[in-house]
Amino acid sequence: MSLSEFAVIKKYFHRQYDNDIVRLGVGDDCALVRVPQVRDSGQCQALSMDTLVAGVHFPLDTNPTHIAYKSLAVNLSDLAAMGARPTWFSLALTMPDADDEWLAQFSSGLFELADEYALPLIGGDITRGPLSITIQIAGEVGEHLALRRDGAKEGDSIFVSGTLGDAAAGLSLLVNKMPQQSEYTEYLVSRLNRPTPRVALGLSLLPFATSCIDLSDGLLADLSHLCDRSQLGATIFFDQIPVSEKLKSFFSSSQLNELSKARLVAGSGDDYELCFTVPERHTEAVRLVSEKAGVRVTLIGSMKRDGLVECINADGQVLDMQEMGFKHFYNL
Amino acid sequence: MSLSEFAVIKKYFHRQYDNDIVRLGVGDDCALVRVPQVRDSGQCQALSMDTLVAGVHFPLDTNPTHIAYKSLAVNLSDLAAMGARPTWFSLALTMPDADDEWLAQFSSGLFELADEYALPLIGGDITRGPLSITIQIAGEVGEHLALRRDGAKEGDSIFVSGTLGDAAAGLSLLVNKMPQQSEYTEYLVSRLNRPTPRVALGLSLLPFATSCIDLSDGLLADLSHLCDRSQLGATIFFDQIPVSEKLKSFFSSSQLNELSKARLVAGSGDDYELCFTVPERHTEAVRLVSEKAGVRVTLIGSMKRDGLVECINADGQVLDMQEMGFKHFYNL
Repeated sequence: MSLSEFAVIKKYFHRQYDNDIVRLGVGDDCALVRVPQVRDSGQCQALSMDTLVAGVHFPLDTNPTHIAYKSLAVNLSDLAAMGARPTWFSLALTMPDADDEWLAQFSSGLFELADEYALPLIGGDITRGPLSITIQIAGEVGEHLALRRDGAKEGDSIFVSGTLGDAAAGLSLLVNKMPQQSEYTEYLVSRLNRPTPRVALGLSLLPFATSCIDLSDGLLADLSHLCDRSQLGATIFFDQIPVSEKLKSFFSSSQLNELSKARLVAGSGDDYELCFTVPERHTEAVRLVSEKAGVRVTLIGSMKRDGLVECINADGQVLDMQEMGFKHFYNL
Repeated sequence: MSLSEFAVIKKYFHRQYDNDIVRLGVGDDCALVRVPQVRDSGQCQALSMDTLVAGVHFPLDTNPTHIAYKSLAVNLSDLAAMGARPTWFSLALTMPDADDEWLAQFSSGLFELADEYALPLIGGDITRGPLSITIQIAGEVGEHLALRRDGAKEGDSIFVSGTLGDAAAGLSLLVNKMPQQSEYTEYLVSRLNRPTPRVALGLSLLPFATSCIDLSDGLLADLSHLCDRSQLGATIFFDQIPVSEKLKSFFSSSQLNELSKARLVAGSGDDYELCFTVPERHTEAVRLVSEKAGVRVTLIGSMKRDGLVECINADGQVLDMQEMGFKHFYNL
């Protein structure tokens, strides 16, 4: 079937926003969004843009609800990693044809997450072509409070939120077309398809964290970016990396060797948890705010002077990073 | 060849902006852009996002310099149509591989136009996949001054900037693989590949124009959008539509019949000129500001109560819009 661009927008993406921010939404040459009242001259707009391409960032047969949810979630995660409060987003949707059922599912996944944050869709573009989704997201944060990657200090404690490796395990279950197994399959696949952006946690860390990054490429790669930008190294203790009960169930029923398990936990991406650094004296404060935000955080190591990420096992041995799937720069 | 995403960004897209607007550019989870000092509470951010897909919006063998130039130009054109002053843009570039020569050309076309407007590239995403370019652009405009589509009044004069039909003629020359002919080929193809966003004109129209749209889909289709939004109709005089000398040369050396010529001028897209309405009493003021902006503007008709766009020829006859290539809603 074929719907015109206008009909598609009207039916699936047009919402009337009754608020002070969006002054003119979808349907003109530009959207008009009110510039927020500046509380202080250091107030900044935080901006991030991420593209998800079919067959590259998600399997071709992924449910459109999940595609939309994840497209917005990964952008919200970038705001979370900056400690920014979300304000609006725009959507560029390129698709081979305008299929009614596909669009209904896509739209429902998109607005499910957008509504959770009362986040207005202010505009975008719908074009014909191979399936891909680009979202521009905007938030607000004070310039000097923002959780940048370059602020970590020697001796700072390193924390991660949630549990790591679930999304990568979910992907391996999908790719290897494993049968619908026991309790963990659904959970692990859902962590791949519906990552949880840690927006509330990011906001609550503003007074304490010296740096922050979200884990899209895997703990080792992303922590390494943070180290690069902060011109420091890091020591992490592999056994302290938080792993979910479901992932443990998967591990115990799988044939994976220890190295493969370590790769899933520390060398694989798509978790969209936050990795952040905090001066040691604020460790207790971080536990309190994480409880308030309802998000588990775990101390996994500390920043050191030497410019490398070092991963240590329970026996005190340094693990081989490359064997763990670490690539400093991933190829396009 | 293969370059890492970071290497690509660093080599081709990373610029240090020494200004008060961009506080943190490419390389973190978000860019930080200072919220402008609000001059009055009606100050708005104008936002537009356009995608160009290879093989859909430009021929596959288009020079990457032109692809980049046009990608930014069509977004600037949306700001122009709103009367907004450009402030920043972000880029989502999806491409099959990271080819050095291709990227060098793309980057040069992009910054050629960005530099003309001192427009900072604040961030974006580079991904692997079928070639497509999405740009988010932001500008500034007063909420009550902005040139919306819905402000035209009955009796307003209708103007267009520049000349129409050049880009469509350029495309027909490319598609029909016509030999490199005489003086006009290069000009017409350049109007397709390198449209001129009418930013200065849009800004200078703020005090006079009641509505404005940029011509991406063709005069008849875009004026019809403007009429829809303003709940009015329009009468335009076909012979008053401005046509370039080069297009006239092309017409006289071509086998095109009158209807095909009319389709190129009024029913085809990609001109990115402005079509705007002005109360009759301001007609002379518009001529003065257009001279100052260095852009030709031409009076082509007026707004009427009846909700249709009517096109009249030199003999006073109403032309058949559908024959002229008019489609109210274009299909995806």
